[in-house]
Amino acid sequence: MPEISKKGQRMPASPIRKLTPFADKAKQEGKKVYHLNIGQPDIETPEGMLNAIKNIDFNIWAYTPSEGTLSYREKLAEYYNKLGYDITPQDIIVTAGGSEAITIALMTCLDEGDEIIIPEPFYANYNGFANQGGIVVKPILSYIENGFALPPISEFEKLITEKTKAIFICSPNNPTGYLYTREELEALKEICLKYDLYLFSDEAYREFCYDGRTFTSPMHLEGIDDNVIVLDTVSKRYSACGARLGCLITKNKSVWATALKFAQARLSPGMVEQIAGEAAVDTPDSYFEAVNAEYTARRDTLVNALNKMDGVYCTSPGGAFYIVARLPIDDADKFCQWLLESFTYQNQTVMLAPATGFYSTQGAGLNEVRLAYVLNVDDLKKAIQVLEEALKVYPGRA
Amino acid sequence: MPEISKKGQRMPASPIRKLTPFADKAKQEGKKVYHLNIGQPDIETPEGMLNAIKNIDFNIWAYTPSEGTLSYREKLAEYYNKLGYDITPQDIIVTAGGSEAITIALMTCLDEGDEIIIPEPFYANYNGFANQGGIVVKPILSYIENGFALPPISEFEKLITEKTKAIFICSPNNPTGYLYTREELEALKEICLKYDLYLFSDEAYREFCYDGRTFTSPMHLEGIDDNVIVLDTVSKRYSACGARLGCLITKNKSVWATALKFAQARLSPGMVEQIAGEAAVDTPDSYFEAVNAEYTARRDTLVNALNKMDGVYCTSPGGAFYIVARLPIDDADKFCQWLLESFTYQNQTVMLAPATGFYSTQGAGLNEVRLAYVLNVDDLKKAIQVLEEALKVYPGRA
Ligand SMILES: Cc1ncc(COP(=O)(O)O)c(C=O)c1O
Ligand SMILES: Cc1ncc(COP(=O)(O)O)c(C=O)c1O
Repeated sequence: MPEISKKGQRMPASPIRKLTPFADKAKQEGKKVYHLNIGQPDIETPEGMLNAIKNIDFNIWAYTPSEGTLSYREKLAEYYNKLGYDITPQDIIVTAGGSEAITIALMTCLDEGDEIIIPEPFYANYNGFANQGGIVVKPILSYIENGFALPPISEFEKLITEKTKAIFICSPNNPTGYLYTREELEALKEICLKYDLYLFSDEAYREFCYDGRTFTSPMHLEGIDDNVIVLDTVSKRYSACGARLGCLITKNKSVWATALKFAQARLSPGMVEQIAGEAAVDTPDSYFEAVNAEYTARRDTLVNALNKMDGVYCTSPGGAFYIVARLPIDDADKFCQWLLESFTYQNQTVMLAPATGFYSTQGAGLNEVRLAYVLNVDDLKKAIQVLEEALKVYPGRA
Repeated sequence: MPEISKKGQRMPASPIRKLTPFADKAKQEGKKVYHLNIGQPDIETPEGMLNAIKNIDFNIWAYTPSEGTLSYREKLAEYYNKLGYDITPQDIIVTAGGSEAITIALMTCLDEGDEIIIPEPFYANYNGFANQGGIVVKPILSYIENGFALPPISEFEKLITEKTKAIFICSPNNPTGYLYTREELEALKEICLKYDLYLFSDEAYREFCYDGRTFTSPMHLEGIDDNVIVLDTVSKRYSACGARLGCLITKNKSVWATALKFAQARLSPGMVEQIAGEAAVDTPDSYFEAVNAEYTARRDTLVNALNKMDGVYCTSPGGAFYIVARLPIDDADKFCQWLLESFTYQNQTVMLAPATGFYSTQGAGLNEVRLAYVLNVDDLKKAIQVLEEALKVYPGRA
């Protein structure tokens, strides 16, 4: 039998999916499982987007240009320019979700052996994307005590070598919910300019900023146009994860032209998605206001309840719909598996994501979990009660 | 300004797209351009597939499992088992087009520096996919004289080294239209087993076999299950190129499990597409009969007309909707550009794909072009007349 590639052997399995068999088993046994582990929102997709699908009007489901249709890119440019990005449709390449945008950006800018610095904890699939290109991830610890704010720039400088090609940030962050301030972004800008590094900005959660905070993108900064690549997606913005529609934005013409060659090899993004994505840009503000009010209520419910629990700690994140909390436990992987395998409270249990999967540094996040508030407040309260009861009896309590 | 990756610099631009600016200019000048250069069929997508889109019935456009929904994979297995593949839904991973299936299969089986043997001329984007993984393509010439039949197995053996991991075939072939016989596949099977190589089978054009020929897949062969990976797509089968829906099929469980890790990193294939793809499997036979009758008529029109032209030669291919023809010209790239830039017949011209783009061997295909018969017979006849007139006056006529 021929061998699997080394790259394939090294490819990390999704840390969240490792627990899926245990969740399946719990359900088979008749347990109710509250899913706080996933990034699939329970929010409805905007009607205008769904109607655009239902109203398609073509006879040939054809390829579109590799960079996306002009009309969708024009509409997207309108959306971004309202946010102050000052871009044109010629700065955009439409992709199959944020995932493909990240893959293409990495291949465009980094070779095998090149290094990318990412504050951790970070979205676990970055490891997989980096592995595909033989790219080395250099993590920098951020800390729960200050809500996972940007680590000191001196920590970045320590890691920079000849091989360092980029810094990769995600704000608002998955898994921490942390929203970078303009000052933090300015600091990142300086170091990127000083060492001639790309600044990758994953903005999947841009729409989800709370308590009147405003979102700042590296696109808002002056004098760094050639370094910045924004990776975006409609997945969370419009609760349209199944659309597989994202984009890469850069004002650097060489990056754009090279990224286009990768996009051309795979021919085209989806046609129906782009039609729906075009309609999505006209989603009324009221949709986002309602969604953000809902998420804020959920976050507050969760943060308050967690901090009331004995030995539990978290801060109140400024964005996204995730929280990383510290629990009085020995090992988050064991605890999360135990919740599914061995615990039940009134025939219910809860599924969480061990934070270890979001750290590259060995041993980091051992007593932390990520909670996604993708359940309504009522279910969230029930899930919290289950967690509280579980912590009381968990044999590995620390 | 930070540098582009070497991989990005090496990434081949699409050979077909190189001529696009010239075509655009010709159109601006008011010339009618017959497009025989592209793989976008003019055939309508089956109604059932389009209706499935219009009838979607969900409120949350959600992620699906990374390997695709079970219901779509069940339906696909039904389709493949009717063809005699003897597979289960657990052998399938649903992908964003055949393109993603190829990318994932390559990453799963080949590392940087590993070699893959591909009979040439071949689909040009294989070069791009190989470059993404640092994989080395070893081409083997096939020849127009026998319609681009499989080169002698001894030619493959000459190329096999320690680094050789796979043989990649595409039947019916793009660009040649050649359909491999069962005997040719048996010969490939023997060499794959002898040297423990993967056999990648790109079956994008499976449905398009003419003159009563039947399609044979490596999936039909005995005793090679662990070596075979089928790369498939609905793009051409249902004229649904814009769906970005394909799949990878393998009975090798390690390959499947590793490919799944790559699929998990990018989360999910499209949801609406899978709903449409499920409906597509029920497309009535009459649809394919009509399409194949149409393509046969076009092929015959084209082959007959070409062979009547002075100095032009091609065989009549058994499948797909492409022909590679030899022309009495000095240089196909120059000729194709000249057609767009400098030639006009009754204010019309024709756009062809230089065959050089489908060869890796330097200098091969210099007097060959690929013609895609994606125009109706009337337009095809007009395009042929234009080509005939052009050949009479082309300054580089050989
Ligand atoms: C931070 C972040 N980036 C990118 C993605 C990829 O999303 P998609 O490929 O659906 O756009 C996700 C999905 O959860 C994410 O959380
Ligand atoms: C031989 C071959 N393989 C694969 C593809 C990729 O097609 P898609 O990604 O649309 O499925 C094509 C498209 O033209 C092709 O001709």
